[in-house]
Amino acid sequence: MKKAFFLLSLALLLPALSAHAGKVVTDSMQSVTLGSEVKFNVYLPDGFDQSGKKYPVVYLLHGLSDDYQAWVQRGNMQTVLDELIGTGEACEMIVVMPNAGGPDIRNTWNGYFNMPGWNYEDFFFKEFLPFVEAKYRVIGDKGHRAVMGLSMGGGGSTVYAQRHPDLFSSCYAMSAWLDNKGGEVGGSGNAKKDCFYYVREAVRNHSALDFIDTADEETLSRLRTVAWFIDCGDDDYLLDLNVALHQKMRNHKVKSEFRVRNGVHNWEYWHLALRWAFPFATRNFSE
Amino acid sequence: MKKAFFLLSLALLLPALSAHAGKVVTDSMQSVTLGSEVKFNVYLPDGFDQSGKKYPVVYLLHGLSDDYQAWVQRGNMQTVLDELIGTGEACEMIVVMPNAGGPDIRNTWNGYFNMPGWNYEDFFFKEFLPFVEAKYRVIGDKGHRAVMGLSMGGGGSTVYAQRHPDLFSSCYAMSAWLDNKGGEVGGSGNAKKDCFYYVREAVRNHSALDFIDTADEETLSRLRTVAWFIDCGDDDYLLDLNVALHQKMRNHKVKSEFRVRNGVHNWEYWHLALRWAFPFATRNFSE
Amino acid sequence: MKKAFFLLSLALLLPALSAHAGKVVTDSMQSVTLGSEVKFNVYLPDGFDQSGKKYPVVYLLHGLSDDYQAWVQRGNMQTVLDELIGTGEACEMIVVMPNAGGPDIRNTWNGYFNMPGWNYEDFFFKEFLPFVEAKYRVIGDKGHRAVMGLSMGGGGSTVYAQRHPDLFSSCYAMSAWLDNKGGEVGGSGNAKKDCFYYVREAVRNHSALDFIDTADEETLSRLRTVAWFIDCGDDDYLLDLNVALHQKMRNHKVKSEFRVRNGVHNWEYWHLALRWAFPFATRNFSE
Amino acid sequence: MKKAFFLLSLALLLPALSAHAGKVVTDSMQSVTLGSEVKFNVYLPDGFDQSGKKYPVVYLLHGLSDDYQAWVQRGNMQTVLDELIGTGEACEMIVVMPNAGGPDIRNTWNGYFNMPGWNYEDFFFKEFLPFVEAKYRVIGDKGHRAVMGLSMGGGGSTVYAQRHPDLFSSCYAMSAWLDNKGGEVGGSGNAKKDCFYYVREAVRNHSALDFIDTADEETLSRLRTVAWFIDCGDDDYLLDLNVALHQKMRNHKVKSEFRVRNGVHNWEYWHLALRWAFPFATRNFSE
Repeated sequence: MKKAFFLLSLALLLPALSAHAGKVVTDSMQSVTLGSEVKFNVYLPDGFDQSGKKYPVVYLLHGLSDDYQAWVQRGNMQTVLDELIGTGEACEMIVVMPNAGGPDIRNTWNGYFNMPGWNYEDFFFKEFLPFVEAKYRVIGDKGHRAVMGLSMGGGGSTVYAQRHPDLFSSCYAMSAWLDNKGGEVGGSGNAKKDCFYYVREAVRNHSALDFIDTADEETLSRLRTVAWFIDCGDDDYLLDLNVALHQKMRNHKVKSEFRVRNGVHNWEYWHLALRWAFPFATRNFSE
Repeated sequence: MKKAFFLLSLALLLPALSAHAGKVVTDSMQSVTLGSEVKFNVYLPDGFDQSGKKYPVVYLLHGLSDDYQAWVQRGNMQTVLDELIGTGEACEMIVVMPNAGGPDIRNTWNGYFNMPGWNYEDFFFKEFLPFVEAKYRVIGDKGHRAVMGLSMGGGGSTVYAQRHPDLFSSCYAMSAWLDNKGGEVGGSGNAKKDCFYYVREAVRNHSALDFIDTADEETLSRLRTVAWFIDCGDDDYLLDLNVALHQKMRNHKVKSEFRVRNGVHNWEYWHLALRWAFPFATRNFSE
Repeated sequence: MKKAFFLLSLALLLPALSAHAGKVVTDSMQSVTLGSEVKFNVYLPDGFDQSGKKYPVVYLLHGLSDDYQAWVQRGNMQTVLDELIGTGEACEMIVVMPNAGGPDIRNTWNGYFNMPGWNYEDFFFKEFLPFVEAKYRVIGDKGHRAVMGLSMGGGGSTVYAQRHPDLFSSCYAMSAWLDNKGGEVGGSGNAKKDCFYYVREAVRNHSALDFIDTADEETLSRLRTVAWFIDCGDDDYLLDLNVALHQKMRNHKVKSEFRVRNGVHNWEYWHLALRWAFPFATRNFSE
Repeated sequence: MKKAFFLLSLALLLPALSAHAGKVVTDSMQSVTLGSEVKFNVYLPDGFDQSGKKYPVVYLLHGLSDDYQAWVQRGNMQTVLDELIGTGEACEMIVVMPNAGGPDIRNTWNGYFNMPGWNYEDFFFKEFLPFVEAKYRVIGDKGHRAVMGLSMGGGGSTVYAQRHPDLFSSCYAMSAWLDNKGGEVGGSGNAKKDCFYYVREAVRNHSALDFIDTADEETLSRLRTVAWFIDCGDDDYLLDLNVALHQKMRNHKVKSEFRVRNGVHNWEYWHLALRWAFPFATRNFSE
């Protein structure tokens, strides 16, 4: 009721804006792999319904204890992207924000990797990506697909692009949880085998750092076909993992952009990160 | 329930942070002038309860159709200010966010000025400011008091500092609604005398532009004791009012900082504005 | 001698950088129109000599009392552009910096317009542009040509793009001298008909503001095919002209980006402006 | 001659600016320790000659193969600081830029440490600092003294503040050369004992990293009285040293700000760094 009045007043107050105004729709699919429904948000650029054309796509991944709504509700991705498209810093694109978690981390599955009982990576590449790209007029090649995310989703983005460099033109990792060898998240002493235990194990077993250390030259040359960006706050408790990833990649001659801005592991950092992330993806899409 | 789990998990995940962490409390007072209860939020800096010391104060004003919760809920003022205090760009301060409106703009009073039935300026200076400064250990002189706000609150801030330059060391106006002579908000043809009508009339009658045009030299010399900052987006429909204020003040040798960043009349703009506004207030507090 | 040692030491110290490293060459042509030799600097992107391909071109114009060396020597355009190309924010491009002035403003011609004794606009479009674009492998269409400049060159850029919108995809004006109707530069009382007198008259007679005021709808529709950016410091003595240009264009529905940053009329402002100007030109080149 | 005309024309063109305008004077002293004259530049804030008051001081150190003129000529420190004082982001201060090198690095001494034949640290603390602070109305306590510098001067700043934490309230290190254990500068195989050899040895022997590793608790507690800022480009060949310093300090609970911006080891990076360095020093001066 209040909302209705609010919208009415805005309509009265604001002159017509010619600015770019995309929309966010909530959708879902039934996953055979996971045995459950998976919700996701999709940002569709201004004019999507009428244009009939195909668009580049970004997969934007949330963090531990968040869900598919986080980037819209807490990161204001819609307003930021509208503004960046308006200035031309980002191109018109579709942004897909799938669910891979929830706030009750001990009893709800979180994570982008395969783990006992939650084969999310299988779901993502075999079920989800084909489904969403068929449904939403995505161009659908490496040159027009990017992945980005924060924390657990920054690690997920990095590992997805490491293991599938043929699918992504760029990867932007924010405050990324790239390994758990030092018990960075949740400590190392907890033996209770709940959902939180398995995601920590999976992150450890999918270490983005070990991946570089053990990559052969052919793998490295494939990594060089992806544009990498690593962005982490100077007081973030995951900083060292991110530093190490940049150093290892550089030492193996895989170029990555690296930034350390002021900040900790919070939404102020990620909200601002979008202002670099969408333009970076845009610049690395094929023409 | 979900919230409890969420907080629990954060406690598990995050190492102790030494960073600055203020808190926001919601309070209210019964106004005789307005004949109603007025709610307000107060940001108290880290250690407020223990320190026993007095602090500078900022009055942070919301816009039309918003209320006292907007700066916390939509502007994330708490996280931004914590971060700025952490780096030293802002000093420890108390921030007071009073209610002066609501979303149902036709049937709820909005506005910072006196108008028939809603003498808010009287309330603010005679009831509210004394009440809050007595209750919350505010230093309480011009050298340690600032005012800032967005849109209707940007206009309110400007006019408050124009009419009470002895009370404020600085004023930061964001996307300010400074006059309504051109029917900038709500158009000019609406004759229905509802709450929205009266706030538009009040803004017209308290024009910050006319104030400069008609100021005598003594008034101008008092305006020069305030540090002014005007910040408005290049695509904001109120831009011309803000340009005019800067030009008029400069032409009368009242120095003001002026910025036009990319943007429209939205929370992305105001959220970012806080990163300049709190440091500006800080630099202009007396030592 | 010192320079030789310096370069030697750098060669010893620095590991090979894979970063983009363009070069600046100084060239000249004999102008029939002006009856003199005209020098110019040209920035050529990394690999220009080997690539064999054609590039977009930017004309980068200096200000009053400066010359063709100013952007390289005082604006560090080479390092800035190398860095922007390195991150992909700017594309590989050729930047042409022609001479249109000199420090002895009373006895040396300054200016981008036709004036008695100095028909520079004729020279620019009939002699210079064809010469340079034939010589330097420029793509040579509107979609791959931009103009930008500071102060007198900001005015020159704007008027060139106004009068030749079929030639430029974008125009970036920094602290632009757009008119002299208020005696903004040099005052209005000086009657001595030296070179400085004539450039002031020419700027007045080529007012970018009058151009908008008197443009018919067909002209306006052609202006809409150019991307405009106006960038001026809040304490620049030419601010009001730049504000007026943005307002007039917006009122005639010719979209322009507009920014007011902190600053005055100096090289700190223009040096930083390049970080927005080259990416803006890039985004507005055709693909 | 040209210069005279240029200044004349500026005087004609520009309206009087009320902005802050400091000046830079070149001075020198005869050093007994070094057995030679040492030149230095001093930035004096607007009004210094008339004010009679004492000011905070910053020591701003140049890099290898540069000299005392570099910060003024290549870093434009004067304009940047004038502007920052104008907005209040920096306070009025004296900036001292001593000579500690020169371009012929094999035959001219470079360096801030004691080495065979060049006891610069002795000179700096026993001769230079007392001389300059007596001559230029410096407040002269830890609370009003800071040190900052680039590359070799960033290392010098860090080590000076490590070894003399009682003298400096803050230290801002840009692209700092903090050790030479990996042959970071000049490689490791060069055995010719020229000036360049000795500065590399001195940097190795004054490792800022080893200093933290071997510090006892009392030393660490003294380091905590200094505000530290480490700023290095993501593609700088000295990045890893700077990362390591931040990590070691944090692990020993000595707080430091840390930033990695886009860039390499060049003046674009250091020029911009001044915009954070002077405000950082200001915020950490005592009131």
